Amino acid sequence: MEFTYLTNAPLDRAKTEYLQLLIQAGFAPDTETVPVMNACGRVTAQAVYAHICAPHYAASAMDGIAVRASATFGATETTPIRLSPDQFEVVDTGDPVDEPWDAVIMVEELVKQENGSVVIHAAAAPWQHIRQIGEDVCAGEMILASHMTVTPAAIGAMIAGGVLEIEVIRKPRIGIIPTGDEIIPPCTDPRPGDILEFNSSIFSAMVAQWGAEPVTYPIVPDVFDQIRDMVAKAAGECDMVILNAGSSAGREDFSAGVIRQLGTVLYHGIAMKPGKPAILGAIGGKPVLGVPGYPVSGIIVIEELLRPLVDHWLKAPTEKKQYAPAVLTRPVVSGLKYQEFVRVRLGFVGDRLMASPLSRGSGVVSSFMKADGILEIPQGTEGYEAGQTVSVRLLAPMEKLKNTLMVIGSHDPLLDELADMMHRQDSSVYMSSAHVGSMGGIMAMRRGENHVAGCHLLDTATGEYNRSFLKKYFPKGNVRLISCVGRQQGLMVAPGNPLGFTKFADIATPGVRYVNRQKGSGTRILTDYLCKTEHVDPDSIYGYEREEMTHTSVAAQIAAGSADAGMGIYSAARLYGLDFIPICIEEYDLLIPDHAWDTPMVRQLLATLKSDAFRDKLLALGGYTVENPGEIIAL
Amino acid sequence: MEFTYLTNAPLDRAKTEYLQLLIQAGFAPDTETVPVMNACGRVTAQAVYAHICAPHYAASAMDGIAVRASATFGATETTPIRLSPDQFEVVDTGDPVDEPWDAVIMVEELVKQENGSVVIHAAAAPWQHIRQIGEDVCAGEMILASHMTVTPAAIGAMIAGGVLEIEVIRKPRIGIIPTGDEIIPPCTDPRPGDILEFNSSIFSAMVAQWGAEPVTYPIVPDVFDQIRDMVAKAAGECDMVILNAGSSAGREDFSAGVIRQLGTVLYHGIAMKPGKPAILGAIGGKPVLGVPGYPVSGIIVIEELLRPLVDHWLKAPTEKKQYAPAVLTRPVVSGLKYQEFVRVRLGFVGDRLMASPLSRGSGVVSSFMKADGILEIPQGTEGYEAGQTVSVRLLAPMEKLKNTLMVIGSHDPLLDELADMMHRQDSSVYMSSAHVGSMGGIMAMRRGENHVAGCHLLDTATGEYNRSFLKKYFPKGNVRLISCVGRQQGLMVAPGNPLGFTKFADIATPGVRYVNRQKGSGTRILTDYLCKTEHVDPDSIYGYEREEMTHTSVAAQIAAGSADAGMGIYSAARLYGLDFIPICIEEYDLLIPDHAWDTPMVRQLLATLKSDAFRDKLLALGGYTVENPGEIIAL
Repeated sequence: MEFTYLTNAPLDRAKTEYLQLLIQAGFAPDTETVPVMNACGRVTAQAVYAHICAPHYAASAMDGIAVRASATFGATETTPIRLSPDQFEVVDTGDPVDEPWDAVIMVEELVKQENGSVVIHAAAAPWQHIRQIGEDVCAGEMILASHMTVTPAAIGAMIAGGVLEIEVIRKPRIGIIPTGDEIIPPCTDPRPGDILEFNSSIFSAMVAQWGAEPVTYPIVPDVFDQIRDMVAKAAGECDMVILNAGSSAGREDFSAGVIRQLGTVLYHGIAMKPGKPAILGAIGGKPVLGVPGYPVSGIIVIEELLRPLVDHWLKAPTEKKQYAPAVLTRPVVSGLKYQEFVRVRLGFVGDRLMASPLSRGSGVVSSFMKADGILEIPQGTEGYEAGQTVSVRLLAPMEKLKNTLMVIGSHDPLLDELADMMHRQDSSVYMSSAHVGSMGGIMAMRRGENHVAGCHLLDTATGEYNRSFLKKYFPKGNVRLISCVGRQQGLMVAPGNPLGFTKFADIATPGVRYVNRQKGSGTRILTDYLCKTEHVDPDSIYGYEREEMTHTSVAAQIAAGSADAGMGIYSAARLYGLDFIPICIEEYDLLIPDHAWDTPMVRQLLATLKSDAFRDKLLALGGYTVENPGEIIAL
Repeated sequence: MEFTYLTNAPLDRAKTEYLQLLIQAGFAPDTETVPVMNACGRVTAQAVYAHICAPHYAASAMDGIAVRASATFGATETTPIRLSPDQFEVVDTGDPVDEPWDAVIMVEELVKQENGSVVIHAAAAPWQHIRQIGEDVCAGEMILASHMTVTPAAIGAMIAGGVLEIEVIRKPRIGIIPTGDEIIPPCTDPRPGDILEFNSSIFSAMVAQWGAEPVTYPIVPDVFDQIRDMVAKAAGECDMVILNAGSSAGREDFSAGVIRQLGTVLYHGIAMKPGKPAILGAIGGKPVLGVPGYPVSGIIVIEELLRPLVDHWLKAPTEKKQYAPAVLTRPVVSGLKYQEFVRVRLGFVGDRLMASPLSRGSGVVSSFMKADGILEIPQGTEGYEAGQTVSVRLLAPMEKLKNTLMVIGSHDPLLDELADMMHRQDSSVYMSSAHVGSMGGIMAMRRGENHVAGCHLLDTATGEYNRSFLKKYFPKGNVRLISCVGRQQGLMVAPGNPLGFTKFADIATPGVRYVNRQKGSGTRILTDYLCKTEHVDPDSIYGYEREEMTHTSVAAQIAAGSADAGMGIYSAARLYGLDFIPICIEEYDLLIPDHAWDTPMVRQLLATLKSDAFRDKLLALGGYTVENPGEIIAL
């Protein structure tokens, strides 16, 4: 096998060759002996045989009396037989039944006499109600084959068979080495340029879920010798090593060099996205995987390239990936050069499973948290059209997807609060919300992709909210408009309002850096409208083309000092401690299509909207007016 | 709600009322604060909000240079622009991008000049390749709602959001109290009457799998006050209590009395089988469950009655039970009075899922280990016919059932060894073997229930094995007969042969206690045949009607001294250190139906049969002759 550098090796081929290379170099599991009672979930290294029989003696299976069956022959309802005390022995369940007894009669079938004898009205069959020796397990019998996962019942069967310790496959120790000058341990007050080291926590949790034992090493700075020494140490102490970050070709990327100095590099560069810079290395028979620094790339790389090695070690059947057909809500373009992994949000609308592609940024770890599935696009495929049915790998159980309220439309933090309240009420109900703006929500509803859309669209002709848009986009009227809240919209500005904003038009002041919302959002439509009514030329506003997707992300830019002002709702400004110049109160309503109306999820949503707890929550958030949330608005 | 004694409460009603009673009495989860990095799999007690933005500063998304976008406007392939060193800053991925810079150009797109300046051939869009503050997570944003299970990616998102600790639902502590005078801790050399205490190990493993924390208390003898004191202690220290055994109405069954003295008993007696004597008790808001002593009853009772309480506590969505239609291989009779839980072995033969009921003895814990499913028979149903399609609750994944070689027929320990060797070779392949004797195996194959049947049927007219039976039962010839082994059959007798057996006819000697095999087994047919040829009257043999299902269980009775002789194979005698009087060598072959022939499982079986490792294993077991295992026998 030849070693290559900065390759674009097809993923499947790389996987196969990597495992082969490792096995040739001696990659194989160790075993260890553990007490059976602690062995649940472990994998047997050898077949397990019973040492003793269970039961290990002939035992009464009932409370009653032990008798000789022959002494009872002939007993019937009409010809009862009396047994004198020397013809039986009282036994409880589990008591030994010894010579001369060979049958047990249940206590319920006995008529006790004053002189200590008993009368029976039926004959006992030989060996009735006696648990024979070995009825459960016979000594010498194989209880569990090799490479089987120990279950609770198997623990019982083994102890019953006198097996108190077994040889199991040792959990592989996986060393995780975070590297990078800019990396710092998790904290709550990082300085600019500091990157919180959370990859090792993600990877630890993942490998522990697979049955391995993570060992996290201290952060190593970008110094070749220090990285090399730590990799050598980890390769000595562990069975597999993850070397995190430093796997690409930047100024300080030493990973490949380090592995090559200590061992071999099979491939540096895999035809996968995210995850291309992955390094498949080995030191002796131990895999050393160079993993990119972006968390999403890292997750995909260790899932695709490390998990098969852990499964191979553990001799566990590889967990079968589950796929389901789903309808794409947006087109997905893919490069021909790579196998691509696109995270998607999934949910059933009616009986169609809808898949919405999530952010493809490999730094966006929250997108992985929100993902219900992965769309795997093969190398050589250009992507898929919106509306196309594709096969999606499921990360969430079908049951959850069937009980998820799909909310796609305008963003408001109250949606998260609604999700929280609904799920607290009934933990089988979930909400998944995507922020695409009011118009985006209407379009999604026309395509049948959501159950609910948040909407605050101002009809600039009438000054009225939402109604005219519904009439235009749903001429057949098959949606309902549900009253939600009034929201205080205004200018969010730095705390103390240092630039002295007083009115909307101040955003056009030279030197002011504005940050806008994306086109199609209700807030953007409002802003464009205000520009017109206040006679402000958008071209005169610095940053008008700088777009953020949510109220909170606009507030975040202002709070960080990277912008001076942005339109948004009061609750977002308050969250970031910003000053707020009120401009208007708008109507934020919810659209629900008829087909979703009579479902348990929507019923629970409406009940939550009408609850006092929801009102209390809005008051706490601030900037909302509440009239009749949950009521249908007549159109 | 009224409290009743020795009831026959319908299971579903009992469950509902029990939870209601407990909630009224204050049954609710506690919470605890844990480091986020250790929170994988835990359930959030409250919604989790980000403390900081991620990224918390505007960061370069690439290795390259930070520029002012406006300085690059107009650059094209034909009109490149030169940037002097004061017009850019070199940045690596993750570096902060501060004022005055508002865009990043990738290093790959730069042409470096000798004087330190760079040339670019395309304009940079404002904010390109810059990760905006909060791109991943915005401060104040809800990262996880309440009562959500923490995933590895969520750990990353929380740490990125500056959340280092979270409030989660505390794992409920479940106290397990084993009671009984006859109960002893697990050991390898129990005396008659001793019962090994393994229920607590089974229950501990089960509740740990559900996310609870088991606490096992020492064994308490059958003394009312001691049991009461231990229950009071456990109820003080734990959130739920399992009081094991002593739940029925025998001589020493104190459980109900103890619980009634310390708290209340809602029901004593549930309409379920196994599990009828279960006690639903409470001390304050803490459930105290009286669980029957037989392990299978115990497993069913805590699965049905305790697990809903654990799920309620953990606020986790109750794991949806999976059901599949399956064809019953044998009739199942059920009492009208109870909801019944029958363990079944499952496997696909062709595309039909076949369900074979396992032993219904509630002491037979190994049957639970072998069970792939549970047939739940509703109260008021009399049972089902053989061949009927029933809905079975799955305990094993479908994938496993599809890769399980169903072996039903005559028993031989070599089948277990084959299963072990096949599974070691390929851990996705399983074998499930049921022992119903040679004729049982043929009948099962006629009904399409198995892939393989072990068979050693002597044609008493010709002295030939198997061939004539195949011709008779498969007149269309759609099965193949595969050579396996020759087996030494003989009389198994106590070590040292104290009764001086020399020949088959000695089993009719007065005072000799014989133990037989079940009708339809090859060994029984051989024995009946020997009786005829040796002129022995079965009626003159004491114990001829005492039937065991396997060679090893016959050997186990003799080894335990509960019988003096039995017919069986040499390997079984050797396993138990018994003396062996050889009678004859028989042919033990395997039947495989045509429809199963060309499957991966059968191919692997044949390869294993032909392997040297299999020959070596047979030599080690002893009593086998081997010619051409795995070869087709011409009929």
